[in-house]
Amino acid sequence: MPALNDKRNLYDYISGYVDGEGCFSISFSRRAKFLVGWETKPSFSVSQNEDRSEILYRMQKTFKCGFLRRDFSDKTLKFEVRSLDDLLEEVIPHFETYPLLSSKQKDFILFKKVCNLMRKGEHRKANGLSKIVALAFQMNPGGKRRYTRDQILDVLR
Amino acid sequence: MPALNDKRNLYDYISGYVDGEGCFSISFSRRAKFLVGWETKPSFSVSQNEDRSEILYRMQKTFKCGFLRRDFSDKTLKFEVRSLDDLLEEVIPHFETYPLLSSKQKDFILFKKVCNLMRKGEHRKANGLSKIVALAFQMNPGGKRRYTRDQILDVLR
Repeated sequence: MPALNDKRNLYDYISGYVDGEGCFSISFSRRAKFLVGWETKPSFSVSQNEDRSEILYRMQKTFKCGFLRRDFSDKTLKFEVRSLDDLLEEVIPHFETYPLLSSKQKDFILFKKVCNLMRKGEHRKANGLSKIVALAFQMNPGGKRRYTRDQILDVLR
Repeated sequence: MPALNDKRNLYDYISGYVDGEGCFSISFSRRAKFLVGWETKPSFSVSQNEDRSEILYRMQKTFKCGFLRRDFSDKTLKFEVRSLDDLLEEVIPHFETYPLLSSKQKDFILFKKVCNLMRKGEHRKANGLSKIVALAFQMNPGGKRRYTRDQILDVLR
């Protein structure tokens, strides 16, 4: 076994937990009133059965942002951060310092690129949104999407 | 955000990952030739989709024990440690130093008690096995079991 460590490191622990149970995602909602016709919604979320929810409250406290909500679709509790400012100021810096060790790290890198484009307002321009869609559709290849890439791009053309 | 840390701590990361995806379990198999009629099988396992298996190989390397196997029931890859010596020498000391933060810690404490009873050979005595069964049935309350507690104890009587 490794030498004993004096101090437990909660931040590494959280990265480990997120590598197993966390999800970075970018979703798109149709908004006819928006100039580009679409709302871009970044989300960082972590799921857990409700009987073991302590860790989610601890994350909320550690990240100093986000909210907990019940997901009735799979009967779990979710810690979720949707605010772009919180993602840029709290969540992304954490995972830059304490990176994921699995291939989920690729999703994080794409997620970070999208959030940085959004920081510059690129999601409100047709050209910028095309770039964002291209990045988002490389993420979480197994996940379900309401709209296809072409459906989103068709509105932009 | 927390102050940056110079050094990533893999061991805390692993505890975080295991808190999400790991399982400590004690199962029992009918063995008519055994004096007590039952084999007691401790297991520490961690599951992951096969496309993100890096972390499991890293755990095997870190714990210096265990094996990887495909679980056809849920199409995952599992890292598993079943050897009592490896559990006592490698796995349990790790989680004593880097404890789980969720209620899964209760399962670990029960698991450790059972492994320590097995170290003393208590699983080979009717009285000791009764104690072990009582501890094991407090673990993973949602999990499936092939035999009920009474079925196991009936053989002992």
